[in-house]
Amino acid sequence: MRWADIGDEVCSVSRSLSVVGDKWTLLIIRSAFLGTRRFSDFQSEIGMTRHRLSDRLNKLVEEQVFDKVEYQNNPVRYEYRLSERGKELYPIIISLVKWGDKWLAGEDGKPMEYIHNTCGNKVMPTLTCPACTEEINPRDMTVLPGPAIKAAISK
Amino acid sequence: MRWADIGDEVCSVSRSLSVVGDKWTLLIIRSAFLGTRRFSDFQSEIGMTRHRLSDRLNKLVEEQVFDKVEYQNNPVRYEYRLSERGKELYPIIISLVKWGDKWLAGEDGKPMEYIHNTCGNKVMPTLTCPACTEEINPRDMTVLPGPAIKAAISK
Repeated sequence: MRWADIGDEVCSVSRSLSVVGDKWTLLIIRSAFLGTRRFSDFQSEIGMTRHRLSDRLNKLVEEQVFDKVEYQNNPVRYEYRLSERGKELYPIIISLVKWGDKWLAGEDGKPMEYIHNTCGNKVMPTLTCPACTEEINPRDMTVLPGPAIKAAISK
Repeated sequence: MRWADIGDEVCSVSRSLSVVGDKWTLLIIRSAFLGTRRFSDFQSEIGMTRHRLSDRLNKLVEEQVFDKVEYQNNPVRYEYRLSERGKELYPIIISLVKWGDKWLAGEDGKPMEYIHNTCGNKVMPTLTCPACTEEINPRDMTVLPGPAIKAAISK
């Protein structure tokens, strides 16, 4: 099977990137995981123009990554809360943290430390196999055409 | 601590995004994990212009994500192989796959299936705690200033 014959429209990476494949968008989502909810807070943290921030937030509401919730009336004010779908972006964000910590930290070391409250340890999450619990090495993964690729081939 | 007081230069997400915070770059890396190594193959799979592809590949070589290796002389031809640093981007790519599979798949289902060769099971990797092996829920993670943030504050 050649990838070029199928096309990027039947690829989950490509589909995910159509929602979060933008640096500003991922910085907004990072800040949301650190507790930020309000327009002005996103703006001051990330240093984006109002126009660009508004564009990205609207798109993320449209894509159901954020719920836009009124927290004040007169004047009406909204905040942006990660939806269920949004919260499941966490592995993407933490994987960016982990890679940056390892390969791009300066001489001062890691910017942040992470505590897993459940066990109390200072850790950085790992990608493991849910069947055998071993840590995943990309070399040990085989990729096969799934139902959507098979359907695309047969069309 | 207010994020705005520290700034995005002391953030591992922001640092990682300075290397891979671009849709085209992440599509190139995805293709590399599927085995693609040559310019013309990246081009036909992703459907990028030569100019844009060349720009992204050069940047990824500069950032040590790819090793540029001669595979033919007369005429000289190079291929792009994921370095150690590049291979460690796998959790980011697989997390994009997982999110896309769950939230953006069409009626035909998942595009691809993943087999973990070590145990032979069809799986999708999970983010777990290396100390207690539990699956990570973002709500159970506490973030604290690490050495680089502390150093930035004290400057």
